[in-house]
Amino acid sequence: MPACVGKGVNIVKSLIEELEEKGRAVKAASRRMAYLPTGVKNQALHNISDDLLARKDEILAANQVDYNEAQASGMTAAMLDRLLLDSGRLEAMAQDVLAVAALPDPVGETFDMRTLPNGLQVGRKRVPLGVIGAIYESRPNVTVDISVLCLKSGNAVMLRGGKEAIHSSGALAGVVQGATVSAGVPEGAVQFVENTDRALVSHMLKMGDVIDLLVPRGGAELIRFVTENATMPVLSGGIGVCHTYVDKSADVDKAVAIAYNAKVQRPTVCNALDTLLVHADVAERYLPLVAAEWAKAGVEMHCDEHALAILKQNPSLKLVTATDADWGREFLSLVAAVRVVHSLDEALEHIERYGSGHSEAIVTEEYGAAMRFLNEVDAACVYVNASTRFTDGGQFGLGAEVGISTQKMHARGPLGLKELTSYKWVILGSGQVRP
Amino acid sequence: MPACVGKGVNIVKSLIEELEEKGRAVKAASRRMAYLPTGVKNQALHNISDDLLARKDEILAANQVDYNEAQASGMTAAMLDRLLLDSGRLEAMAQDVLAVAALPDPVGETFDMRTLPNGLQVGRKRVPLGVIGAIYESRPNVTVDISVLCLKSGNAVMLRGGKEAIHSSGALAGVVQGATVSAGVPEGAVQFVENTDRALVSHMLKMGDVIDLLVPRGGAELIRFVTENATMPVLSGGIGVCHTYVDKSADVDKAVAIAYNAKVQRPTVCNALDTLLVHADVAERYLPLVAAEWAKAGVEMHCDEHALAILKQNPSLKLVTATDADWGREFLSLVAAVRVVHSLDEALEHIERYGSGHSEAIVTEEYGAAMRFLNEVDAACVYVNASTRFTDGGQFGLGAEVGISTQKMHARGPLGLKELTSYKWVILGSGQVRP
Repeated sequence: MPACVGKGVNIVKSLIEELEEKGRAVKAASRRMAYLPTGVKNQALHNISDDLLARKDEILAANQVDYNEAQASGMTAAMLDRLLLDSGRLEAMAQDVLAVAALPDPVGETFDMRTLPNGLQVGRKRVPLGVIGAIYESRPNVTVDISVLCLKSGNAVMLRGGKEAIHSSGALAGVVQGATVSAGVPEGAVQFVENTDRALVSHMLKMGDVIDLLVPRGGAELIRFVTENATMPVLSGGIGVCHTYVDKSADVDKAVAIAYNAKVQRPTVCNALDTLLVHADVAERYLPLVAAEWAKAGVEMHCDEHALAILKQNPSLKLVTATDADWGREFLSLVAAVRVVHSLDEALEHIERYGSGHSEAIVTEEYGAAMRFLNEVDAACVYVNASTRFTDGGQFGLGAEVGISTQKMHARGPLGLKELTSYKWVILGSGQVRP
Repeated sequence: MPACVGKGVNIVKSLIEELEEKGRAVKAASRRMAYLPTGVKNQALHNISDDLLARKDEILAANQVDYNEAQASGMTAAMLDRLLLDSGRLEAMAQDVLAVAALPDPVGETFDMRTLPNGLQVGRKRVPLGVIGAIYESRPNVTVDISVLCLKSGNAVMLRGGKEAIHSSGALAGVVQGATVSAGVPEGAVQFVENTDRALVSHMLKMGDVIDLLVPRGGAELIRFVTENATMPVLSGGIGVCHTYVDKSADVDKAVAIAYNAKVQRPTVCNALDTLLVHADVAERYLPLVAAEWAKAGVEMHCDEHALAILKQNPSLKLVTATDADWGREFLSLVAAVRVVHSLDEALEHIERYGSGHSEAIVTEEYGAAMRFLNEVDAACVYVNASTRFTDGGQFGLGAEVGISTQKMHARGPLGLKELTSYKWVILGSGQVRP
């Protein structure tokens, strides 16, 4: 075996030993986190908020290293913008931390408590999950978002950030670690994996004895890799094939504003519109209006034949004939598929077949259509007369989110504080035995 | 290739095709189950209850076939008793079905609904999980218990019962199928796998596109096999290494009654006592009393040295010196491990190290000790001054249970109706778009 290979193996081996050591530390800390007083947790969050501002220079300098490397490697302007931190963004981050501090502590809440005929009091008490593992890509603010939600919900956390933002994430994790320990949170409760070797991700996925829940945040490839290889429960989603259905009874102005917002306000994210379904009775009136608005933003429309027939008179539109591959496709860009349907049933069938269970909307003024859509569409978030862009923990009033789940087990939709908890049954007796 | 092998392969292939066909049918039915009116579901449950009695002869005849085969194969008396159905047991089963019918329908419950500053109403609405897969062993009543809980919670179900009770389970599944379809439940909502070929279990574990949640009910080997091989979420548990800790401040009479009940009332189940931990300050007074009671029932005690020194004077006791293998062992019989500890902390450490997260109890009259035990023990069910034998969906007021989970994700402890559901976010707007 050549010497260099042997050396490489040894380096990885020692990195894995280091990861295992972090695992033992985070597990030990998580036991004490479970019954940490709310005051200590809130103090930690206030300290983090303060230190994000106090240690601004250090954080921005680390971010500059990432930014320069990314720029040199030819990263797109959009990606560079996501990576960039500045004073304004740090101040917003510090404010967001205070918003989580102000939320009620989910841990310890007792619910479903009742007294049984034998005098036993039986109920459930909310507890943290234990250790949350987070594997994420380039946005540095994820480090703070996830740490803060985990701390407030009494969980310890092991963070593994992406290579592109590793200096920024490391600096932010350092701030979080310092600020929490000084508030009295057990040392080790926030672990950050500095090394970006891929072997460490694979090894983290096997640490089922340490990590109680894994949350991957990133592109489809990362999520697939984590879901297929993790030995512990995974909460994931993020893939959003989102439909907006404009019913025959829709208020056309509302429907234009909603489809415009859902497609254009931020086209690169999972809750943006992918397919617009339009009832035939309203298509001739509605489609030219929404198409004209979309055209101003440069939206390309992949239309079925019916929609194409309605729109093709307008030469200023970017029209493409839709293919089968357009249905059920997540565009993540200024492209929308458009299809004319002849009934609510046809819309429901299309969504059932092509939706990814993320966010689905109906625009309608008819009560019965709204109720059927709410009841029959099987998705994390089902909307009547609003833009799917609202699917977000902050927008839903959860303070923030560690991600959005499109699974049905444990938690669905935005994952806030409560979704990072479990419960235990507590049974208060006075000597009862089972007859 | 010998002809017989080719034939065997073909038989399995056609059985798997049949299973796939059942999968398509149950999936299709589950979509309609999701919004089936409560009245139809309750009618189905009443029909099942009636038909269990009306078709008694047919059920008991099928059970007799299983019983005779089991007897001929040398099954133990205890196992034979678990397999046996008679008029009394069928009547109890029919009554239990009515108890579930009387519970509130969990589906459609809307909770956490609030109005946001922009006027959006955002909340969660409870929905069924979809298709529940159940793989279980010999007790025939599981067929009815699980079907009834799935139907009431709007889930379709695919049942795979054990070989020993296959005729009984098949007859009961036939009753359930007939009774539900006649009430208006979609045909196909209850599927029963008649063939007991093991290849079908393995194939079922790969049907992640059909089965949303798998519940294994049976011994440790079945649960391990299912957990390791299933491609869909699994809720399991059942393995219970349960401790009762008698604190120095315990009421000794209560502590004797609780330990006696927890060990003796039904020693073969998961919530029975395995290890008794006794504080040194009370051990000399308490241990002889509980040992004398246990001796009447024939309990064998595996004692640490301290407990042995206290008890060895009494020649009527069955005493064995405990080995390391006794701590953390699930006895499922009239055997208990006994250890003297010197503090609550030592008891908590023992439980953390050896417990399986099922059911743990403290007997104490001291408020602070009770609170610490409730807060610090990490288990599905944590008791103060009561027998761990109460860990059961029926005893907790859930009507019945499909099993007991020792996992922390999704649901913990007894799994009743609510635990077979998920939720979707519903967002009611009037044209809102995201700024």
